[in-house]
Amino acid sequence: MTARAFVPGHVTGLFSVHPDDDPVVAGSRGAGLALSEGVTVPADPVAGPDDREVRLNGERVGMAAVTGVLDRLDVDARVVADTDLPVSAGFGVSGACALGTALAVDAATDGGHTERELVAAAHAGEVAAGTGLGDVVGQARGGVPIRLEPGAPPAGYLDGLPARPAVEYVTFGGLDTAAVIGGDTDALTRAGEDALAALRESPTVETFLGASRRFARRADLLTDEVEAAIEDVRAVGGEAAMAMLGQSVFALDDGLSRAGYDARSCRTSEGATLVEE
Amino acid sequence: MTARAFVPGHVTGLFSVHPDDDPVVAGSRGAGLALSEGVTVPADPVAGPDDREVRLNGERVGMAAVTGVLDRLDVDARVVADTDLPVSAGFGVSGACALGTALAVDAATDGGHTERELVAAAHAGEVAAGTGLGDVVGQARGGVPIRLEPGAPPAGYLDGLPARPAVEYVTFGGLDTAAVIGGDTDALTRAGEDALAALRESPTVETFLGASRRFARRADLLTDEVEAAIEDVRAVGGEAAMAMLGQSVFALDDGLSRAGYDARSCRTSEGATLVEE
Repeated sequence: MTARAFVPGHVTGLFSVHPDDDPVVAGSRGAGLALSEGVTVPADPVAGPDDREVRLNGERVGMAAVTGVLDRLDVDARVVADTDLPVSAGFGVSGACALGTALAVDAATDGGHTERELVAAAHAGEVAAGTGLGDVVGQARGGVPIRLEPGAPPAGYLDGLPARPAVEYVTFGGLDTAAVIGGDTDALTRAGEDALAALRESPTVETFLGASRRFARRADLLTDEVEAAIEDVRAVGGEAAMAMLGQSVFALDDGLSRAGYDARSCRTSEGATLVEE
Repeated sequence: MTARAFVPGHVTGLFSVHPDDDPVVAGSRGAGLALSEGVTVPADPVAGPDDREVRLNGERVGMAAVTGVLDRLDVDARVVADTDLPVSAGFGVSGACALGTALAVDAATDGGHTERELVAAAHAGEVAAGTGLGDVVGQARGGVPIRLEPGAPPAGYLDGLPARPAVEYVTFGGLDTAAVIGGDTDALTRAGEDALAALRESPTVETFLGASRRFARRADLLTDEVEAAIEDVRAVGGEAAMAMLGQSVFALDDGLSRAGYDARSCRTSEGATLVEE
């Protein structure tokens, strides 16, 4: 039996890094936004580990976050993910593949796990692979997730903003997530904790965008193109911020288009879910 | 400004009662299912308490769960809820009105609350009104929610089944929620805790339906028509259970239709959300 999951894309605007020996507990605090543009992940069980196969947009790929999930759930499967999102550019594609794999293989094998167990397996797979720290829990929740405590449930704890804004995004290329979150993150984490405190003080989408801009500047993550695009959106009265971790910008409503960018538009999405066949 | 929320209906299959002086902390453990058939709740701020108005399907109603939410959020509004669900029959309409009011009035007034704060206000409004103990947190989460710890966040704690089954339902009339949950609930709560333990042992939709049937029998809540309908669905190989608290039955897939009932069909729904205008 094949089962299929849809996992929204996810942009993080601000975050802090919280390592732990246990990849279920390790993670990030921060805030982001789940996108109606996402990743569709069908999974078919296969006979054994030699038959495992992971494809992204048709290409066979090695994706440690996905194989980590298969190992944790003790399942062998063929996973064929498809997305229109930019890959390795801050849109949470690896987290989506991990979470979609967990949901789809559990359904395809009548695995009998709960949602929190599957989120924990996907989060741990992603963290152990070094490709993300908080996308999975945000993608599971959907909306505008605020990661108050790092890690997957039961350690992790999220709230969210009730707003469901329209969103645009543009990318100028990738950033090496593993290099940033694997390096010295003390200054980044101080900036991220301050930004999260500001958002908790005034939990609105506008504060989220503003705190994200301050975070990107203080954490020294802005590239020239990203900084220019954010300024251009601000110049036409819009709200924009950098998508962590990519050379990417997301904006509310049609802010990027109004600033003259060839942007993609989507909506804020609910969380990941199995798709009825 | 008007804002509009959509809140899914919610059927509870099994539950236990956990009173507390604080209505945010009081609630139920249990399990249910969020329905794509739900309640649309637009809210308009008004000048003062004398201008408050609550309508359900066009009729002016006194709904203590809704006015309790307005009191808790310190807002005056006109709330005009519409639904195709049966009212007072175990589909969570009062909880949906409470949660929809919280989401919509916060958006309409730029209230700046987080999702968890709005869920807590709605849950407390519903519990204080005596019209429900767990619908609101299930409706906020969506899917097939399992209420592991009673109350609203941060006290309440939910997990869920990842399945998203198609659902049918039929109702033969109401039950007096306040009379059941306001009376002696010791035997009901023992039955509910046992049923939840069985579900946690084997977290599948089939276990949920089976544990719900045993719960309804042990808690002595079955009416003749409900019992007959469940047996009829079982006789055609289907899965069905009683919707708490109403003289209502829900079934997986087309179980009720196949058993000859004139049932309504819907899908398992994601959680409550603001609707973009």
